Amino acid sequence: MNELRIAVVGAGLMGADHVTRITTRIVGASVVAIVEPDAGRAAAAIASAPGSVHFASIEEAIAAGIVDAVLIATPGQFHEPVLLPVLAAGLPVLCEKPLTPSSAAALRVLEAEQKAGKKLLQVGFMRRFDREYMQLRSLIASGDAGELLALRCAHRNPSVPASYTNDMLINDSVVHEIDVVRYLTDSPITAIEVKHQKRNSLSPAGLKEPILVLLETESGILADVEMNVSIQFGYQVRTEAVFERGLAEIGRTSGMTTWTDGVIGTAEHMSFTTRFADAYDTQIQRWVNATLVGEIDGPSAWDGYLVAVACEAGVTALNGGGRVKIEYAPRPAFYS
Amino acid sequence: MNELRIAVVGAGLMGADHVTRITTRIVGASVVAIVEPDAGRAAAAIASAPGSVHFASIEEAIAAGIVDAVLIATPGQFHEPVLLPVLAAGLPVLCEKPLTPSSAAALRVLEAEQKAGKKLLQVGFMRRFDREYMQLRSLIASGDAGELLALRCAHRNPSVPASYTNDMLINDSVVHEIDVVRYLTDSPITAIEVKHQKRNSLSPAGLKEPILVLLETESGILADVEMNVSIQFGYQVRTEAVFERGLAEIGRTSGMTTWTDGVIGTAEHMSFTTRFADAYDTQIQRWVNATLVGEIDGPSAWDGYLVAVACEAGVTALNGGGRVKIEYAPRPAFYS
Amino acid sequence: MNELRIAVVGAGLMGADHVTRITTRIVGASVVAIVEPDAGRAAAAIASAPGSVHFASIEEAIAAGIVDAVLIATPGQFHEPVLLPVLAAGLPVLCEKPLTPSSAAALRVLEAEQKAGKKLLQVGFMRRFDREYMQLRSLIASGDAGELLALRCAHRNPSVPASYTNDMLINDSVVHEIDVVRYLTDSPITAIEVKHQKRNSLSPAGLKEPILVLLETESGILADVEMNVSIQFGYQVRTEAVFERGLAEIGRTSGMTTWTDGVIGTAEHMSFTTRFADAYDTQIQRWVNATLVGEIDGPSAWDGYLVAVACEAGVTALNGGGRVKIEYAPRPAFYS
Amino acid sequence: MNELRIAVVGAGLMGADHVTRITTRIVGASVVAIVEPDAGRAAAAIASAPGSVHFASIEEAIAAGIVDAVLIATPGQFHEPVLLPVLAAGLPVLCEKPLTPSSAAALRVLEAEQKAGKKLLQVGFMRRFDREYMQLRSLIASGDAGELLALRCAHRNPSVPASYTNDMLINDSVVHEIDVVRYLTDSPITAIEVKHQKRNSLSPAGLKEPILVLLETESGILADVEMNVSIQFGYQVRTEAVFERGLAEIGRTSGMTTWTDGVIGTAEHMSFTTRFADAYDTQIQRWVNATLVGEIDGPSAWDGYLVAVACEAGVTALNGGGRVKIEYAPRPAFYS
Repeated sequence: MNELRIAVVGAGLMGADHVTRITTRIVGASVVAIVEPDAGRAAAAIASAPGSVHFASIEEAIAAGIVDAVLIATPGQFHEPVLLPVLAAGLPVLCEKPLTPSSAAALRVLEAEQKAGKKLLQVGFMRRFDREYMQLRSLIASGDAGELLALRCAHRNPSVPASYTNDMLINDSVVHEIDVVRYLTDSPITAIEVKHQKRNSLSPAGLKEPILVLLETESGILADVEMNVSIQFGYQVRTEAVFERGLAEIGRTSGMTTWTDGVIGTAEHMSFTTRFADAYDTQIQRWVNATLVGEIDGPSAWDGYLVAVACEAGVTALNGGGRVKIEYAPRPAFYS
Repeated sequence: MNELRIAVVGAGLMGADHVTRITTRIVGASVVAIVEPDAGRAAAAIASAPGSVHFASIEEAIAAGIVDAVLIATPGQFHEPVLLPVLAAGLPVLCEKPLTPSSAAALRVLEAEQKAGKKLLQVGFMRRFDREYMQLRSLIASGDAGELLALRCAHRNPSVPASYTNDMLINDSVVHEIDVVRYLTDSPITAIEVKHQKRNSLSPAGLKEPILVLLETESGILADVEMNVSIQFGYQVRTEAVFERGLAEIGRTSGMTTWTDGVIGTAEHMSFTTRFADAYDTQIQRWVNATLVGEIDGPSAWDGYLVAVACEAGVTALNGGGRVKIEYAPRPAFYS
Repeated sequence: MNELRIAVVGAGLMGADHVTRITTRIVGASVVAIVEPDAGRAAAAIASAPGSVHFASIEEAIAAGIVDAVLIATPGQFHEPVLLPVLAAGLPVLCEKPLTPSSAAALRVLEAEQKAGKKLLQVGFMRRFDREYMQLRSLIASGDAGELLALRCAHRNPSVPASYTNDMLINDSVVHEIDVVRYLTDSPITAIEVKHQKRNSLSPAGLKEPILVLLETESGILADVEMNVSIQFGYQVRTEAVFERGLAEIGRTSGMTTWTDGVIGTAEHMSFTTRFADAYDTQIQRWVNATLVGEIDGPSAWDGYLVAVACEAGVTALNGGGRVKIEYAPRPAFYS
Repeated sequence: MNELRIAVVGAGLMGADHVTRITTRIVGASVVAIVEPDAGRAAAAIASAPGSVHFASIEEAIAAGIVDAVLIATPGQFHEPVLLPVLAAGLPVLCEKPLTPSSAAALRVLEAEQKAGKKLLQVGFMRRFDREYMQLRSLIASGDAGELLALRCAHRNPSVPASYTNDMLINDSVVHEIDVVRYLTDSPITAIEVKHQKRNSLSPAGLKEPILVLLETESGILADVEMNVSIQFGYQVRTEAVFERGLAEIGRTSGMTTWTDGVIGTAEHMSFTTRFADAYDTQIQRWVNATLVGEIDGPSAWDGYLVAVACEAGVTALNGGGRVKIEYAPRPAFYS
């Protein structure tokens, strides 16, 4: 196989973005199939991936025999019904986060993958492919600044649509920090707690945010995460790592600096699409490269399961549960 | 009166620093009396304030009739016995933080000042005189970035002596943030909670830190404060203010930038004495100027009382008390 | 044609880098031929581009009929003998800078391209594809800060090999600023002058640098360029643009910030390969995309000629010529 | 003498600023006399320095016998007629820059001071008292980054009054860099040259700027200085020092950072009065302290003479003189 033939499932904003990415910026892969119920979206995606074909379902796409790998970009509740036939067919798959909305569903996916007998599934936590996150992880691993003691995080969006719910604060947004905290600390999250900051009057009706989320790891590290989705000024993800002998900070935007009208200014990101553009490209390229040699190169289904459990606890905590302890199923040998 | 004749009570590190400050950098004031039991310290202070005289007690200094105002720089437990005769004598006084170690003592001081019939007492929360804190307060008051929603603070020391205790994390260190959060938000603190980050193995034996302190204000603002006293790299006090439409950050050190050996570098402060050098000077100069016209120009005894109550709650919280609610005595009309 | 089959001529450091780039990061192209006299280099390049074939000369590669486009990465003195047969064969070509070492040779190349009847040649001034240079050019074009008045540039290398000569300060290094100044100002350079800063004792024997190069454009803009090739600390290219109502600065490296041992630090680049990694990728991808539709998308042979003339004047200026005026041949209609 | 009684000569903008400074921020000194022909200005100055007295001439002020030291803040052409009687009276004096407008006048002042038999005169080059300039000078002296090779400077003003002439670009503005370059390099300036950048259309009629001034020191260092007086955005003085193994930069403004409307912003200075506020205070306090013990602590009359000579050459260079070599009178033993 010298070019990976990919089926993209879901051609909404994120799926369409992946189709363009694979077609124009990723080496060794092409989009051959679009699985998308909405005819308009499907047509648009087909148009941007010359030579690709539309399928009504993942089963039909698999049956056509032209697909080497699958990329799932549907909303989370549709992940399991796509993942199960894909894994049953033994196809490698990159699934956008979250793996599944519930930990029970995630466990079923783990079983399906184990039945396939081979690691096939990678979860789309793209921050692990961001250069600065990788630098920070290296610094932590090096011990150069002593042991890591705490992480202080902020995840800020300019705004969200009216359809965005309180639970999505955890399941759609904090979900990234939940994965990243474990990635950086190499230790599972064992408790979660949620505090409310003062409500932003610019938040959509019914949304109570920003919030401060406290994550504790088994290794004793406390991560505090400000989750803010209506802050207007821009899109920003920052992490400060507190060590025994020093600090490190990532996520401070830079670029051309201008001096005008008494102000020194630099442009800030307005969306994750520019902030993490390189991380998305790197993630997909490395996934393609690994898939071509029969491997995965990123967070596994097990990582996806751990996050699903922590998110469930997070939603409980958000809805008045206080400090919620987190317990996981034992790790199958398959994932060690 | 064209020059304020000051008695400095306590000639330890901080007192000696104030003696030098008043003698060499403050206009319109001179140190005329040193009250200090330790003969060596007293002699050193006298030497650096030409023309000053040593007294064994504040009472003797007052009786000598040469003192216009008093600056107290002893440890906190000695504040009350100095404050009471000073207030009884109707002398203006600047008292280093904390006003008193207990809220009960603070109430006695409030009564003594009310008996004097005039505001005489200013508490040494010098951060209120730091340029960046003043800028941040103005930004909050302006509403230019929308309402303030949260404060995210860090207070980091390179190290502390072996005599530093866990309670001092609150009473000596977080005490500053407790005052500043109220100063910035113009709202009293109504609850406090303490979380432990991972213990720094470089902390003195028995000290369990860093900690994350959560302060809630009556106005609904949540302030999270990282308190860290063994971080080695330098002295740093940073605050990030989260608004409805933006952010502001203060406390990032700058200065000459160098490029050497593959690194872009700037020097960090190693001590509060350089970080807040200007704030100390400004505080004392403004206190002198105000005192010469019979006023105070800074945090009052009432401010000191509020902090004392919050610190007591903070120590309870630190010692396993969970989230501790804070209640204050009613504010006397005298302080409104 | 759905994949551009490229012959890479010259498999030294830069050529090998391009082979890897095209093979692993560029979409829609592959390296099918390596033209390189050195057997070891050729073998290494072949190994990193599976399916590619070695040719002893560009003529043989063309004759084989498998090449759609050519990328020339040999030293500058070998460009003309490769360019002439490539243009005669009507093949699109990306030629590393400089186009040719002499303006006379550049004129012969211009003639050859005009004889081919179509723009086929793009010159590898990769800085035009750097994000910050593009931002600065947009700012200049917008007029938002008023008219551009001056450019203040610095181009700093940690070190150069002993074989690096004084003339190479102009021909290898300042050559980039000569192109970029015209790119940013949209105006040809009409005079050049060279001043010596104090010699760096760490420069290779016989090399007299750093130098300050003054470039004047027809539009009245003065660009001063510090050219420094032994500064040890890192690789840095910075430009400050002076406008009527403000300033802009590009080229300040950022990334993870660390606080350790009293220093706030960020890593600096050590080589152009990391500083301009994205620019090289963007350049090649856009060249591939344009070539596939029969166009060029970057600096033309005419741009290369202008730089060649200015470099000749620059060498004269460097060798004691004072301020040297620059005159160009009239621009052929073909290049307008 | 325990308080220095100062006569301030000239109560324009700068003189009035000094009167306020000495009265409110400088320890050990007071303004006792104002010498100022304009009645309104004199009255305002008297009002801000309680207890001070107005004199029509410096001679009358000296004759009154109440003056210990003199601070001259008149325009440069009036310096000599004030300095000569002051030096004849043996009074210490701080004279604002320039010492005198011509080198001939400066030589007469040198003679007068030598006749007084004691160093009495300090020139107001306040940048030498700026913290970052002092840090940079220490770094140069330390040799930590290797030898200094070049200085790259910028001096930018938002605007100047219509009365500002071309020669003032040198005599009023570049004069600071002329002193500072020698202060940083410890080597006299031996040549000066002026290049025009593109004229700013916002410059007052008749003014042709910005300019680039090239200063060469005896030690072989080339300093290039952008002098810009109509750049609108703010007031900025920046210096980049190029070393054998690294760089240093001073003059980048910092402070509270805000994120709003897609922009990361920091406030820039709009005037030298805030940019160099601390430097002015430090200069005067150190001058007062030194004067009280019979010394000077800053640039001497000889320093003022060197600058006067270089400015004369600079004006020649500005007015079409090309590269102008600079020669100085031999240094009297008195000034070694």
